Amino acid sequence: MPDTRGSIVIGWDIGGAHLKAAWAEDGRLRDAVQVPCRLWQGMGELDAALTTVLERLPVNADHVVTMTGELVDLFDDRAQGVHTLIDRMAAALPQGRLRVYAGRRGLLSPQEARGQVMDVASANWMATAAVVSRLLPAALLVDMGSTTTDVVPVRDGAVVARGVTDHERMAVEELLYTGLTRTAVMAMERTALVAGERLPMMAEYFATSADLYRVLGRLDEATDQHPAADNGAKTVAASLRRLARMVGHDADDYDPAVWRAMAADLTERQLRRIHDAACRVLSAGVPPLPVDAPVVGAGVGRVVVKEVAARLGRPYHDFCDVVGAPGQDWVASCAPAAAMALLG
Amino acid sequence: MPDTRGSIVIGWDIGGAHLKAAWAEDGRLRDAVQVPCRLWQGMGELDAALTTVLERLPVNADHVVTMTGELVDLFDDRAQGVHTLIDRMAAALPQGRLRVYAGRRGLLSPQEARGQVMDVASANWMATAAVVSRLLPAALLVDMGSTTTDVVPVRDGAVVARGVTDHERMAVEELLYTGLTRTAVMAMERTALVAGERLPMMAEYFATSADLYRVLGRLDEATDQHPAADNGAKTVAASLRRLARMVGHDADDYDPAVWRAMAADLTERQLRRIHDAACRVLSAGVPPLPVDAPVVGAGVGRVVVKEVAARLGRPYHDFCDVVGAPGQDWVASCAPAAAMALLG
Repeated sequence: MPDTRGSIVIGWDIGGAHLKAAWAEDGRLRDAVQVPCRLWQGMGELDAALTTVLERLPVNADHVVTMTGELVDLFDDRAQGVHTLIDRMAAALPQGRLRVYAGRRGLLSPQEARGQVMDVASANWMATAAVVSRLLPAALLVDMGSTTTDVVPVRDGAVVARGVTDHERMAVEELLYTGLTRTAVMAMERTALVAGERLPMMAEYFATSADLYRVLGRLDEATDQHPAADNGAKTVAASLRRLARMVGHDADDYDPAVWRAMAADLTERQLRRIHDAACRVLSAGVPPLPVDAPVVGAGVGRVVVKEVAARLGRPYHDFCDVVGAPGQDWVASCAPAAAMALLG
Repeated sequence: MPDTRGSIVIGWDIGGAHLKAAWAEDGRLRDAVQVPCRLWQGMGELDAALTTVLERLPVNADHVVTMTGELVDLFDDRAQGVHTLIDRMAAALPQGRLRVYAGRRGLLSPQEARGQVMDVASANWMATAAVVSRLLPAALLVDMGSTTTDVVPVRDGAVVARGVTDHERMAVEELLYTGLTRTAVMAMERTALVAGERLPMMAEYFATSADLYRVLGRLDEATDQHPAADNGAKTVAASLRRLARMVGHDADDYDPAVWRAMAADLTERQLRRIHDAACRVLSAGVPPLPVDAPVVGAGVGRVVVKEVAARLGRPYHDFCDVVGAPGQDWVASCAPAAAMALLG
């Protein structure tokens, strides 16, 4: 063991579309970073992203990793994905300094982790919730990312989620496939509100949720790290065009206020879906979480999570505040990576 | 014409379940009153309600009347309902002092009104909106009553609704069949949230929307003037029992927090339905109403309307404030009757 073990820890979260990292020194979070990483396009994407991120992080550190990237369709199955990602990380990082998060089994050596595929796969939400459960007596963690939203109850020092695997978690709405920027609009709703009528939408990859928030003036462009659906400009005008196309229109066919109303309706429905999931998760506890248990918001969609908290009538805490990194937006946006840095 | 004509005007709104009246002196609203009147049980109900109300109002007055009661199933059709109600009011009130509201045709003598059934039927919302359109340059009137909710846009001194008849108004969601107290829970949703699952509800008249708001501590009992679905007690315990029965449970089967979560979910869905209708009505205008046009709340469900305004990001005005009767809750709860008193 090197003498520095424990002093600097870098937490990694290998997603399907982003590589995220955060580093802590003596148990205090210092910084976090997220870069695009289109893993489904090949392992070269991960290598490039790793190089980019490693240039921005301390050299002499321990590394702990969690992932969801094993589910991209580059891999035949999750086992292959977990093995491939573990091996690639082990090869890229200093020998003997890497451990892998296996949820309830804790941190394992790469070799051990290869044998625990189901515990390693998509366990990143559990790391975040585990950290929250150490710091708050009860809370509902809501991490709204670019693609998915996690809704996880914690109580009495424990994560009290009903599901563990993606499948189980989706069945009880602890995992929702809806996000701030990358969700295809065609997959959000079947109909859209246009000039006083609800019209069917085309099932075409014309627009994404980033277009909706951009049209509404609610998007921080730094959080939208992938190309637009049409590879076009990331401007309000271009987003209006993409949105109008979903219902067979050109943007000029109506006053922009009509398209803003369409976008507002779609984001409202996204918010309601998260709100509904939160109500379901909250009502499943026996007894339910205390009424004053806060919502802890994480992910690039925290502005939406804050509205969910208000509708639930619960206090709201930003994840970065909970973990003692106030104002560090990227720590909250990369919560699982930050959690790994703290757990490591 | 008596000398006092115009000095005191009593506005009447004959609903299917309530008789409402308001009176104005020299154009200023003085008071309003609502009494239960189960019109579908026979005209004796109207006679009794009229007697009760007339005892509380000035004697020497002009009378103007609007109605929705013509649609109760006591009558073969709306024409019979309109004729019967006009004749009954004419017989009960002083000779020559009654006029009937016929929407765009204005105030007619009873004899004239008998010939304009379609304009007289269910025109009460138009009276309220007409008064609002005289006082505000643009607004969205939302009148949430015990049974129904009206959503009516007004602009430039005019009511710019798309629908006129009940049928047309329901088709464009300017009229919703959902209310604060009398809506059967079985008609609100097909499923309910119970302890972490969405369960089908029984299609039985076990509980009403008043039970939901009572369980949540949000019901002003004065607004709930009809018997409970089971003719039982109007207590939280009895409402919990009625609510649990909707999903085949006894209340004791779960912590009360579970039933409160079920009630909160159902009222949330009711709120969303009104919110959705408001978004649809707002997006139908060409161009849409200005973003600062307020929501004007009327009806016993104004607390819900206020939340809709907040979700729309629009200012909220109580109807009683708009018509210069600040703090007079019953004036806002009986808005069409108050509007009649001002229009007469």
